[in-house]
Amino acid sequence: MTELRTVPTGSAAVTGEDIVAARTRIGDAVVRTPLLSAPWATGDLWLKAESLQTIGAFKIRGAVNAIRRLVPEQRARGVITHSSGNHGQAVSWAARAAGIPAVIVMPENAAEVKIVATRALGAEVVFAPGDGREAVAGAIQRERGLVMIPPYDAPDVISGQGTLALEVLEDLESVDSVLAPVGGGGLISGVGVAVRHLSPATRVVGVESELAADARDSLAAGRRVTWDPRDVARTIADGTRAPVLGRLTFPLIQSTVSEIVTVSETEILAAMSLLARRSRLVVEPSGALAVAAFLRDPNRFGRTVAILSGGNVEPDILADALTSLPGRTFS
Amino acid sequence: MTELRTVPTGSAAVTGEDIVAARTRIGDAVVRTPLLSAPWATGDLWLKAESLQTIGAFKIRGAVNAIRRLVPEQRARGVITHSSGNHGQAVSWAARAAGIPAVIVMPENAAEVKIVATRALGAEVVFAPGDGREAVAGAIQRERGLVMIPPYDAPDVISGQGTLALEVLEDLESVDSVLAPVGGGGLISGVGVAVRHLSPATRVVGVESELAADARDSLAAGRRVTWDPRDVARTIADGTRAPVLGRLTFPLIQSTVSEIVTVSETEILAAMSLLARRSRLVVEPSGALAVAAFLRDPNRFGRTVAILSGGNVEPDILADALTSLPGRTFS
Repeated sequence: MTELRTVPTGSAAVTGEDIVAARTRIGDAVVRTPLLSAPWATGDLWLKAESLQTIGAFKIRGAVNAIRRLVPEQRARGVITHSSGNHGQAVSWAARAAGIPAVIVMPENAAEVKIVATRALGAEVVFAPGDGREAVAGAIQRERGLVMIPPYDAPDVISGQGTLALEVLEDLESVDSVLAPVGGGGLISGVGVAVRHLSPATRVVGVESELAADARDSLAAGRRVTWDPRDVARTIADGTRAPVLGRLTFPLIQSTVSEIVTVSETEILAAMSLLARRSRLVVEPSGALAVAAFLRDPNRFGRTVAILSGGNVEPDILADALTSLPGRTFS
Repeated sequence: MTELRTVPTGSAAVTGEDIVAARTRIGDAVVRTPLLSAPWATGDLWLKAESLQTIGAFKIRGAVNAIRRLVPEQRARGVITHSSGNHGQAVSWAARAAGIPAVIVMPENAAEVKIVATRALGAEVVFAPGDGREAVAGAIQRERGLVMIPPYDAPDVISGQGTLALEVLEDLESVDSVLAPVGGGGLISGVGVAVRHLSPATRVVGVESELAADARDSLAAGRRVTWDPRDVARTIADGTRAPVLGRLTFPLIQSTVSEIVTVSETEILAAMSLLARRSRLVVEPSGALAVAAFLRDPNRFGRTVAILSGGNVEPDILADALTSLPGRTFS
């Protein structure tokens, strides 16, 4: 028994009830992040600051939800994943909190600081060639009987991410649009299901860099379109570099997301800078995508909640955004 | 009738009941700011993020409280103050929200961006020589019959600032120490009164730059000690450059504050950088003082709440803090 729960063919991978249940399951372990008004913006903009979440990103929600659903036999063996970014940190944190072992497979050239941070969370780090991480993780998983916690394409991960939308809908009435970044689709599919469940009139809009617009192309084509990993690697929004949507997330996105908006790299940096200067929030490039899309056309989305997905940005990138753009004073 | 309410000789300027009443008065106009754990710190540190407050600083609390206590005759005439910083923004914002006129007296060399921001909030800006601002403000006040909203030395302002401590004590149990920055003393005296009222065993500790340590000297001397304005101007913590405590705030600080800790300019910048990198919060230098004091001796204060008083920092200063200090990566 080394798999997360499976999905019967033909049924939705995640339901609104799953997300409500996930919220009860993870509530004591995650931060109920604030929904902050952005009065500096033209239009009616609110910010769901998942940058203030434990480990600085929404990923903790899905990781805690998946790990808390493990049965004792699974817990004894432990979990594994292959992300050096926010998901790897989230799995390490959630495993330590649950008192179970975690293995994180990282690329051989991972930044030293990420290796140190992952080990500081108690995880075992295993190195693999950049394009061989999934294979190495799979081999270790089978050899040791570990449970794989995928970064997005698993029902319990998706359900956990969707819990943030329940908080949004409690905190604000009459939301017209929720804007969320799209990588592999775990966040926006969970948000989409939750919003359809509780507030059917609210639009859910995905945002991508125009340098990694595989979700836009997939929705347009009606099938999962894969971009070249070397192409998606060009965007500064490193949290959204998955080259293709997940097998589970894609149909959920098809049925719950109104459209995908793309933004430029310059717009991403400008949104980061504005969020730091005007809302006093540090966000990573992926965390600024939704605000970048809103700012392009502030009156298009009505009362809007932008999901700031995370805040783990390299200091040099934030410093550059703060000092290199016009209109860079704070007030 | 152009004065705020006066204080009978020999009685405390502000009581715990005043602060409880202020909270009811201002509750719908201010953000109930989050109290965030700082798990990256050695020791038990929590952050009261007033940087996420409306206008980016706690000052809005006192300004709204003072303005909401005005009688109709006072409201018709309007208010005035002489601050180009957070207090000026707070008075402008609160006056506009109340639909009354506001005059802000600014130094002739005020930054253009601050002038624009103040006017954008609907206030009338009047310029005066740097050392003549109080005199000019006083003359206009008398001429037009306006109500002066002082930056710290007024009971309604102090009561408003103290409301943030009520939120802290609701959100966290068994707080051993509350650390707050000290300028003119409006914030810490309000916090001190509130904490003594509701949690007498909790210590209240003030924090100053060692380049502006007039509060430390005043507590040691048992009287208000004035520093040379040119000396206090040296600190980067511009929100705490008042050269002397207020006539009302000093006795409140004497009776409620355990001690004053001083920190170096380098420690202030290091705390700013850590807060941006590890807690994803933009704070101004004054807003980092309390964390700087905690980090000097993390186990000394027990379970600690550091008040992040504001987040209005010049982007260049934040960028420098992010890139010029050792250990500057995020994780």
